Amino acid sequence: MIIVQKYGGASVANVDRIKDVARRVVKTAKEGHKVVVVVSAMAGETDKLIDLAYLVTSKPGEREMDLLLSSGERIAIALVALAIKELGQKAIAFTGRQMGIITDGLHMKARIEKIASERAREALEGGHVVVAAGFQGITEKEADVTTLGRGGSDLSAVAIASALKADLCEIYTDVEGIYTADPNIVPEAKKLDKVSYEEMLEMASLGAKVLQTRSVEFAMRYGVPIVVRSSFNDNPGTLVTKEDMEMEKTLVSGITSDTNQAKITVIRVSDSPGIAARLFKAIAEANIIVDMIVQNVSSDGESADISFTVPETESREALRLVEEITEELGATGVAMRDDIAKVSVVGVGMRTHPGVALQMFGTMARHGINILMISTSEIKVSCVIEAKYSELAVRALHEAFGLLVNV
Amino acid sequence: MIIVQKYGGASVANVDRIKDVARRVVKTAKEGHKVVVVVSAMAGETDKLIDLAYLVTSKPGEREMDLLLSSGERIAIALVALAIKELGQKAIAFTGRQMGIITDGLHMKARIEKIASERAREALEGGHVVVAAGFQGITEKEADVTTLGRGGSDLSAVAIASALKADLCEIYTDVEGIYTADPNIVPEAKKLDKVSYEEMLEMASLGAKVLQTRSVEFAMRYGVPIVVRSSFNDNPGTLVTKEDMEMEKTLVSGITSDTNQAKITVIRVSDSPGIAARLFKAIAEANIIVDMIVQNVSSDGESADISFTVPETESREALRLVEEITEELGATGVAMRDDIAKVSVVGVGMRTHPGVALQMFGTMARHGINILMISTSEIKVSCVIEAKYSELAVRALHEAFGLLVNV
Repeated sequence: MIIVQKYGGASVANVDRIKDVARRVVKTAKEGHKVVVVVSAMAGETDKLIDLAYLVTSKPGEREMDLLLSSGERIAIALVALAIKELGQKAIAFTGRQMGIITDGLHMKARIEKIASERAREALEGGHVVVAAGFQGITEKEADVTTLGRGGSDLSAVAIASALKADLCEIYTDVEGIYTADPNIVPEAKKLDKVSYEEMLEMASLGAKVLQTRSVEFAMRYGVPIVVRSSFNDNPGTLVTKEDMEMEKTLVSGITSDTNQAKITVIRVSDSPGIAARLFKAIAEANIIVDMIVQNVSSDGESADISFTVPETESREALRLVEEITEELGATGVAMRDDIAKVSVVGVGMRTHPGVALQMFGTMARHGINILMISTSEIKVSCVIEAKYSELAVRALHEAFGLLVNV
Repeated sequence: MIIVQKYGGASVANVDRIKDVARRVVKTAKEGHKVVVVVSAMAGETDKLIDLAYLVTSKPGEREMDLLLSSGERIAIALVALAIKELGQKAIAFTGRQMGIITDGLHMKARIEKIASERAREALEGGHVVVAAGFQGITEKEADVTTLGRGGSDLSAVAIASALKADLCEIYTDVEGIYTADPNIVPEAKKLDKVSYEEMLEMASLGAKVLQTRSVEFAMRYGVPIVVRSSFNDNPGTLVTKEDMEMEKTLVSGITSDTNQAKITVIRVSDSPGIAARLFKAIAEANIIVDMIVQNVSSDGESADISFTVPETESREALRLVEEITEELGATGVAMRDDIAKVSVVGVGMRTHPGVALQMFGTMARHGINILMISTSEIKVSCVIEAKYSELAVRALHEAFGLLVNV
């Protein structure tokens, strides 16, 4: 088999951890597999480099920032390759460039355009473990160094796995896999053996920060099977893969919560065409990502309240933008609250079982939790509630949907 | 003018020093010059990376070491470029690869084969300061990262200056220039305004560690004028250039000493052809560089003592090699001493003034210093003496040749 193993910053944080990674890699190679190791910068290194840059300039140019940040992974791949060789296994370190990772020119958030993987393929054929730098690539024309944005090493690993037609992409991290809920909130939460790409996407974007969203999208598009597992032990982890019959039998796979959002309500907007477009154009132009949007026509039938959520960090800016156009929207006012949480129930099974939303609302009601906004997709129901009820809601839903034991 | 400015690790050791470099660079650019800045890794970074490698493996592979070590300069060029831009001056950072520095494949001691400088030229034409990584290049075929060995950034700077037909290559360091002697030994030592490549070469190889020897050889071959000056002030420094009439008027330019050598004597070697060849073949095969060699036929006319010096760090190994072949050489024994110093008088003027050696020996005699070995070249006389007399000898010679005041 061809196996891609991705190790995050915590897994290569120091010399001892690097030696652990080397041992695991060599063990996999000795089992007869061709192994590509994708490595992040040692934990803390990237932040240290960013700090240095901001000590030198208040507005770092992105091209030079990418050159700077890409150094962290170079150091890590060299050390990991050396540690693997020390164990008597042939290994070769490849930078993003040498790995053939071609991206567009959007520095600090580049997108992978293609992977020219011939050299890696040759190295694997020659019996080498390939140690590839995550997070980085180069542009095709200028051959300038680019980075893929925070969490980009996950994407590197999945894209490399796809290019090499790998049988498996293992993401090693400091958690044991994907859980039915955050174990910090629900100690009885269970590790899932298997979860679908779609569910993983909903969970990732809803705040379960184990896998970078873009990497899951990429894996789904190209059918790359991912295993999320711990680099601290040999437990099997969670397989993220295509939806199958077995998954559909499970109504709900997990409960997630996200308290880093704020809710903005524009009060009594005139109920005429083009108003919502005008509102969200202003927000979009400021590059603020809107998550949920709810509109209710009011009792007089002539105006509506529009509520939407944005990341808490950008809520002040969003509020300012909306206030600027309040009059233009014909609204009577704007309100914001950031003491909210979004709690979601995710599961592919709900496609064929209509009762999930109802059961969710009932559970909230039984616990006296008021629902401020509701949004649904095919495989997810989300409720915005007051933040103080967030942990209670997760625990109650986790129990209500029977996630404490196998269903 | 096109000016190349090279800043060593001490000149970019921290954020404040980097800002100083940026100010100097921008000042030069504002005077209307096209500036290429060649930067070393921040002081201590390279050693830190080497330490990390040796914590992971006892015998680091050279290809991965080069990848590792080259990270230090990447960080430095990104930070210097950002600091220059912060001052409102256009700047672009280039790695060894982006600078077009093509080397052979000898990792950790690669030689520059050519510089494809089109991109740098375009950037300069476009009004950018080019910030180039010293010490590193890539191989043409595999595009693997190489480094040029310790002090390689000097060579990078000179080679880039040559490729761009720069008018000047300024080497910024923590000393003010080239002195008539080490100011730590001779406080009255004078800074030289000008010194010839040949003299600089003798001084560099004799232990005045301001400029890397290979960089001076390169500058001499391609006629690149070098200025060695301090990055801490605006003093003019020392120009290293072609020999001229003015220099020849000066008998002696400087006195150097080197205490990092050991002397090995092979006693009563048979005086027959091929013996010296056999001896030095053994040493050369172990990659040990022999400096001085002296052979004296003994009074019996049938045997000779052969003495030679090697770097102190390799003296044990050299001694072992010689002992192995003592019998083969027909010698009666081998002796080593490492408490020696090589003191040298350097100056192009001595080509036409034969009295220098005599004056040197006379000075030594007057101070009761016994001479163990003598070696001469066209522009240099070296004496090996007991190490304890080394500082005394330098001071005495400095005075004897009238270097305390302008001659």
